[in-house]
Amino acid sequence: VIKMIAPEVEVIDITHGIAPQGVLQGALVLANTLPYMPSGVHLAVVDPEVGGERRALVLEGDGRVFVGPDNGLLLVAAEKLGGVQAAVEITSREFLLEPVSRTFHGRDVFSPVAAHLALGVPIDEFGPRVEPSSLRRLDVPKPAVGTSRLRVTVLYVDRYGNVQVNATTEELEAVGMLPGSQVEIDVGFESYFAFVAATFADVRPGDILVYEDSYRNVALAINGGNAAEMLSARPGQELRIRLAE
Amino acid sequence: VIKMIAPEVEVIDITHGIAPQGVLQGALVLANTLPYMPSGVHLAVVDPEVGGERRALVLEGDGRVFVGPDNGLLLVAAEKLGGVQAAVEITSREFLLEPVSRTFHGRDVFSPVAAHLALGVPIDEFGPRVEPSSLRRLDVPKPAVGTSRLRVTVLYVDRYGNVQVNATTEELEAVGMLPGSQVEIDVGFESYFAFVAATFADVRPGDILVYEDSYRNVALAINGGNAAEMLSARPGQELRIRLAE
Amino acid sequence: VIKMIAPEVEVIDITHGIAPQGVLQGALVLANTLPYMPSGVHLAVVDPEVGGERRALVLEGDGRVFVGPDNGLLLVAAEKLGGVQAAVEITSREFLLEPVSRTFHGRDVFSPVAAHLALGVPIDEFGPRVEPSSLRRLDVPKPAVGTSRLRVTVLYVDRYGNVQVNATTEELEAVGMLPGSQVEIDVGFESYFAFVAATFADVRPGDILVYEDSYRNVALAINGGNAAEMLSARPGQELRIRLAE
Repeated sequence: VIKMIAPEVEVIDITHGIAPQGVLQGALVLANTLPYMPSGVHLAVVDPEVGGERRALVLEGDGRVFVGPDNGLLLVAAEKLGGVQAAVEITSREFLLEPVSRTFHGRDVFSPVAAHLALGVPIDEFGPRVEPSSLRRLDVPKPAVGTSRLRVTVLYVDRYGNVQVNATTEELEAVGMLPGSQVEIDVGFESYFAFVAATFADVRPGDILVYEDSYRNVALAINGGNAAEMLSARPGQELRIRLAE
Repeated sequence: VIKMIAPEVEVIDITHGIAPQGVLQGALVLANTLPYMPSGVHLAVVDPEVGGERRALVLEGDGRVFVGPDNGLLLVAAEKLGGVQAAVEITSREFLLEPVSRTFHGRDVFSPVAAHLALGVPIDEFGPRVEPSSLRRLDVPKPAVGTSRLRVTVLYVDRYGNVQVNATTEELEAVGMLPGSQVEIDVGFESYFAFVAATFADVRPGDILVYEDSYRNVALAINGGNAAEMLSARPGQELRIRLAE
Repeated sequence: VIKMIAPEVEVIDITHGIAPQGVLQGALVLANTLPYMPSGVHLAVVDPEVGGERRALVLEGDGRVFVGPDNGLLLVAAEKLGGVQAAVEITSREFLLEPVSRTFHGRDVFSPVAAHLALGVPIDEFGPRVEPSSLRRLDVPKPAVGTSRLRVTVLYVDRYGNVQVNATTEELEAVGMLPGSQVEIDVGFESYFAFVAATFADVRPGDILVYEDSYRNVALAINGGNAAEMLSARPGQELRIRLAE
């Protein structure tokens, strides 16, 4: 669709591998990836409410333009990259693919809008301004911090089975989990030993490590293995990490 | 291969996700997708009979050129987009990648032919004309229409688990299934309630809906879920849809 | 990352489907694919030892440049395509993405180096020369040849379930396995009949064939089916092929 409207525009596909309905996963991948990409029109669609009441958005901030549904998908990235300077609700039908289907706005709404934005159409052509404060936000859970322990939530599992959780390195350090520390990870009734480490090669093959991943998120991995499979970890699941005695 | 022969040509990859031997699935994806793509040379390869007797084709129609095996893969799209004006059997070896392997004509036959077509080589350079009426067609099953019921066949399951069947909205309406109607879907000995609806948001989360999808095919989905998984639906399988009493 | 540094450079993605830690699989796919691709800067990353002691390399040979880890991944392709004329260890930090993470050198080391190479930066800018003979090699197993039998190792399984093994057509012929021969394939305690054939269409649907695949490797397939699934074949596994009596 983009190439029909704007044949000269270059399309870079970050991923088509977000799980169905995975709005939080999509938001995190977008926020992790965009700092390493050229500035441009950033189109993202994970849209379980398509055809319902949710608004369609164009956001502008710090030289980048975002297009997608108003379900929180865009906002994590937009705020990480300097915040939202202007927000527009797409209401004009001038740039849409008619007839607009009820179930595929990625094709009929968001792609043609993104293509026209890439061609230089100003954002106010697509509809009225809306308050950035009115945009829907994802409820990203916060870790619970105890003495020598953290209760964290799995945010994302990548294709290697590495498990990103909702903690920062600062939170790890605050409970005494430093590089080299041995910890226990509790998942339901199971318990696993792991090491706080900087990289895979710092632990033995098969060992679990707790590390700061390349996007500066705390994550769990197995050197040479699949941590998500071993821990049966899925997005949304809670894990407890505590210092081993 | 295309980029070696025609470095300036732009390649747009629709999908590499067609199931092995999925000729009908490939034909439907091609026919669904091409109306939303720029005109060009359209290369499609799902080719279970590679190395056998099936012909290799170039089709021309309505400004578009199709390249692929003579197994029905191209014809659904070509006819939807205006019909076949000319058909050529690829017999000239001039443009092929020699030695032509017995098992990978996508690489050795179809891609180099598509690249040369994109460079402007006329279709008659690739071989003799054949009668469009001699082209192999897929046998797309027709639904059986009863009183207040339809027996349909699953044509295609997408990555969301949405299930496309071989019925039209007109056929649904003819048996009294209108937006808002409650229906039962029988799969083997199991039976499921569903609603005829326009979009996911018209039913509750977890409900099954029967709807016209964004390609104007009748399909089954679950709001927020995976219908193919719940119904154990696979391409080729029969389902019965009947008005609930 | 490449597009940020070198916006005009064209990126061709061979695959993102190599299994985690699949260094041998990656090396074989690279060696199979590159002869059919334009010359250029070839970036490959399957990097289980990232963050450890393994070197980061730029190799030059026969007009092509290779970038990736020193774990054998690049060498199978480089040697197939004319050998390594020069090898450089990446030590200069000038072209890297700082801060370089401990776990994602594909992003922070290899991609920026590949982008700068594509822009014309000479290989000696990235670090000191190293001896080509010092590069790490993969240990590709050799088949064991007996009277009328071969013991082979599975190297690679493709998405169709076709099973590439470590034998050549010459080795098949040397033990009397010629087109048309019937053979038995032993996998653990199971035994399967198969035919030596040139292409799928030479055997009946459902039959197993032993054939020379389109990359000139000996492989096992099922006409219309998935051989890896039927044989439970995985990379690294041993199979015995013997002439049927």
